[in-house]
Amino acid sequence: MTALLERHRARFEGAREACRTRASWSPFPEMPGKYPDAAAAQVRGLAAFQAHLGDNARARDFELDQPGTIGWLGDEVSPYTRSPLGARYPQADVDRLFDAAGRAMPDWGAATPETRLGVLMEVVDVIYREQLFEIAQSVMHTAGQSFNMAYAGSGVNALDRAIEALVYAEQAMAAVTPSARWERSFGPSQIVLEKTYRLVPRGVAVCFTCASFPTWNAWPSMMASLATGNPVIVKPHPATILPMAITVRVFRRVLADAGFDPNLVTMAIDNVEQPLGKVLVKHPKTAIVDFTGSARFGQWVEQNAHPALCFTETAGCNTVVLESAEDLEAVLRGLATTLCMFSAQMCTSPQNIYIGAQGVRTPQGRVSRDEVARRLAGAVAALTSDPKKASMILATIQADSTLALMRQLQAEGKGRGRVLLAPQAYAHPEFAQARTSTPLMLQVGTDARDLYGEERFGPISFVIGCADADDALAQATRDVHERGGLTAFLYSTDESYIVRAEQAYARAGAQLTTNLTGAMPLNFAAAYSDYHVTGLNAAGNAALTSLAFVASRFCISQSRRPRRDAASPTRQPGATP
Amino acid sequence: MTALLERHRARFEGAREACRTRASWSPFPEMPGKYPDAAAAQVRGLAAFQAHLGDNARARDFELDQPGTIGWLGDEVSPYTRSPLGARYPQADVDRLFDAAGRAMPDWGAATPETRLGVLMEVVDVIYREQLFEIAQSVMHTAGQSFNMAYAGSGVNALDRAIEALVYAEQAMAAVTPSARWERSFGPSQIVLEKTYRLVPRGVAVCFTCASFPTWNAWPSMMASLATGNPVIVKPHPATILPMAITVRVFRRVLADAGFDPNLVTMAIDNVEQPLGKVLVKHPKTAIVDFTGSARFGQWVEQNAHPALCFTETAGCNTVVLESAEDLEAVLRGLATTLCMFSAQMCTSPQNIYIGAQGVRTPQGRVSRDEVARRLAGAVAALTSDPKKASMILATIQADSTLALMRQLQAEGKGRGRVLLAPQAYAHPEFAQARTSTPLMLQVGTDARDLYGEERFGPISFVIGCADADDALAQATRDVHERGGLTAFLYSTDESYIVRAEQAYARAGAQLTTNLTGAMPLNFAAAYSDYHVTGLNAAGNAALTSLAFVASRFCISQSRRPRRDAASPTRQPGATP
Repeated sequence: MTALLERHRARFEGAREACRTRASWSPFPEMPGKYPDAAAAQVRGLAAFQAHLGDNARARDFELDQPGTIGWLGDEVSPYTRSPLGARYPQADVDRLFDAAGRAMPDWGAATPETRLGVLMEVVDVIYREQLFEIAQSVMHTAGQSFNMAYAGSGVNALDRAIEALVYAEQAMAAVTPSARWERSFGPSQIVLEKTYRLVPRGVAVCFTCASFPTWNAWPSMMASLATGNPVIVKPHPATILPMAITVRVFRRVLADAGFDPNLVTMAIDNVEQPLGKVLVKHPKTAIVDFTGSARFGQWVEQNAHPALCFTETAGCNTVVLESAEDLEAVLRGLATTLCMFSAQMCTSPQNIYIGAQGVRTPQGRVSRDEVARRLAGAVAALTSDPKKASMILATIQADSTLALMRQLQAEGKGRGRVLLAPQAYAHPEFAQARTSTPLMLQVGTDARDLYGEERFGPISFVIGCADADDALAQATRDVHERGGLTAFLYSTDESYIVRAEQAYARAGAQLTTNLTGAMPLNFAAAYSDYHVTGLNAAGNAALTSLAFVASRFCISQSRRPRRDAASPTRQPGATP
Repeated sequence: MTALLERHRARFEGAREACRTRASWSPFPEMPGKYPDAAAAQVRGLAAFQAHLGDNARARDFELDQPGTIGWLGDEVSPYTRSPLGARYPQADVDRLFDAAGRAMPDWGAATPETRLGVLMEVVDVIYREQLFEIAQSVMHTAGQSFNMAYAGSGVNALDRAIEALVYAEQAMAAVTPSARWERSFGPSQIVLEKTYRLVPRGVAVCFTCASFPTWNAWPSMMASLATGNPVIVKPHPATILPMAITVRVFRRVLADAGFDPNLVTMAIDNVEQPLGKVLVKHPKTAIVDFTGSARFGQWVEQNAHPALCFTETAGCNTVVLESAEDLEAVLRGLATTLCMFSAQMCTSPQNIYIGAQGVRTPQGRVSRDEVARRLAGAVAALTSDPKKASMILATIQADSTLALMRQLQAEGKGRGRVLLAPQAYAHPEFAQARTSTPLMLQVGTDARDLYGEERFGPISFVIGCADADDALAQATRDVHERGGLTAFLYSTDESYIVRAEQAYARAGAQLTTNLTGAMPLNFAAAYSDYHVTGLNAAGNAALTSLAFVASRFCISQSRRPRRDAASPTRQPGATP
């Protein structure tokens, strides 16, 4: 079985080195066009995706040979076609999934770390070679991402994050020697003990995945749990089941091929009427919870997961501070792009833009706050005015509730400040029925914190008027500290201001990007290099790529006994000291 | 400052190597007589201890220059003299301690890991060179340990555990590179980012220490928090303040000498009438809780610590399974010694001894369960019949409540089974007033699980009649799994039985010692080699010596920005790829 790790050794060692140096690295091409024999792979992937779909007459059952099926559920709707996918998935008796996972665990837990890592690297490879375009299509038609983002962000980048988790799992497990010979004297006696240190998995993990970006968080979480010996029950968001169903099926197949019980990975689905979330979190056999999703339910999970371990990524205020800029036009272009990217339905999308009353310093003089706001809104409007360009960058809106929230905030914002940009649907060039919207942008004061002081999911942003540049930094980092935040963006040509901002954001716990302009999306998070949620604020603690993310998923049970050939030290006084 | 780590480098590297191999190692002599110039050190230590004591006329104030003193408290009573120590300690306004800790944190958190590790290795060295015998005396006269155990278990072994925590903290922090150069192309552009990864302490840690063995858990917990940048507020058990007060003063002095704010380490004391425990756990600024103490309050801590991290060591059923033995006499001698050691007031002391109906197989034939029980009780009686020997092994009973519990269980046990050994005070040869008791031993069936199915703190043990050897193993591991357990002991000459037991105990999460006889105390836990609580059962999760014990005490905040000399890649197309 260790042969599997041998097969993937070069890739694994590349990842290990990248995690050490945090330099740029990936074994995968990031553009779909660079995938080997890309055109054929796209055709095959699309066909595989379409094979999952039902039609008006009849839903298509997604076969998953897991135990405890008590019915079939599934009412996903494509944000592109606004039609039901027509796929149904087995609804499981939860207790039977836990029982099956419990039965599967001992053999898996007793396998060597190398064996487990080999099987899981094989899963990565099978997804990459066989399922990548099928998964990209399924992400596109559930989460609503553009195809390119689905391929990159939900495909190869998510596979990179998966490998990363395996690297840290290996590192944490390798820190425990499997055995020791321990020898010392007690008075005149020499005691020689053989010690064995077993890595014991903590128990069944439940992995909640979100509607808009399921694989990117789920794959590393699943890998972290499985590498350390724990079974995983995946609980997909009911709007985005298909990518996770395909994922679960691949894991099950590769595990079974490697001689392990496929029930190490199963899926528990629910629907909005009968949610399973609380049942899974409070299940007496739940030992680990990985959660990606809303702040509201996430908080409940964090407060109620005990005695299970809990890793969360929820949401917060992703902030931008504009103090000064060498090239304001480039700054606004970069910001506008990031505000539009997948209609800001990413956990890393910025939302709140803080500007002091003096506006923004530039080499050409100060630009007033109102003008900065107007030009930023203009840049967003320019990016989204052409439907073809809009479709590539905005893609679709995953949920109707996002459109409703935008309407509500537009109405509220009108009374509380200024509507910089009013949203409207754009006509998607390929999918006439697509759920789309250009962004909503509001300009408000800090007295509107009730509006902007939490994540407003979707293409919604606020330009926030602060007293001055220091106040802008103070407000932004306070909002992160108190309300949560994953990413932050700063533009300043003042090195002392930058230093203060770096320290303030480090304490507040948002990952800060300073003075980035150009072709790289501001909120791009690179596997092997960028850490995710810090754990320092309400946005969660799932750093994804650290020892803390893996080290407590297993425990260390030791056994020790006198060395067999020295069991009676009195009869073997010559035992070497 | 890194000079301090340089000064202690050989010791630190020895510890690092020992943690890797888990072979026997310590930089310290384990017997007080082997301490350099031992006699003088003992005299000095005793004098220093006595200088803390008050007299009937007037309490002696233990000066601690920490902020927020609102009064003086202290009613420790020596278990040896049964007289008040007469020492009083500053009672602090808790909010002021948190505020002071918060102010002290930024500088300490911004120091390099090497600087912090150097300062903390210096603390270890100062305790060893200057305070060890004073602390041993203070442990003896609060916890009630024998002087030799106070020197070894609460002195040098506890220092070893402290160093161990520093080793793992260093390993976890070293896994994060401080900076990276990240470069890749986005379309035609080459993006070069400088990334900085900051280790950010999680926040103020509260360290609860227990009455009977304060330093052994506290020192590694304090080190784990401090090494990763967090301040620590120590909350000693009101019966055993002095060893921790001395500890806190040493930390404060060494921190101040190294140029840091001494308020990184403070002490919050309370008394039985007005306990502070819940206030500290639920304080909004508490970020980490380390708890050693009772199962009852420990459970409350575990359930209520969120959002703080929580590391606990409480209690459980430490089990012994007797199946067969080469040399039954040696087995019973070893067991009897361990049942007596510090009157079984150690978290690792065995309590429940499971024997099948067929008794114990030996080369001389089966020995009936009743006879094994009788001979074990006899071995305990023999060890404790001579007051001088008894004083060395049993030492004293820390609390009156333990004597009350023994009386209660003796009465209950009489009706439910058989009293194998009735406890009685023994006359301590040096301290006529000492609170002492020989052990209580009961023989019961598995129907008395309400009696033995939890920790019964003190010299209390149960011989438990099981159906057969398989039942003995099943009962013992079930009790560990359901009720908690830290250590376990097995005697068997049947290799297949041993293999099954190792697996069952590994899953139940108790550290198993098999077939150990001879001079080493069965429950001796060696720093650098033996892991502590596994985290798999109710006894807690404070492994003390693993990455999981340290890795989540700090977070990783990153900042990234374009390389300064390549800020405008369009103007520098020649940036090296």
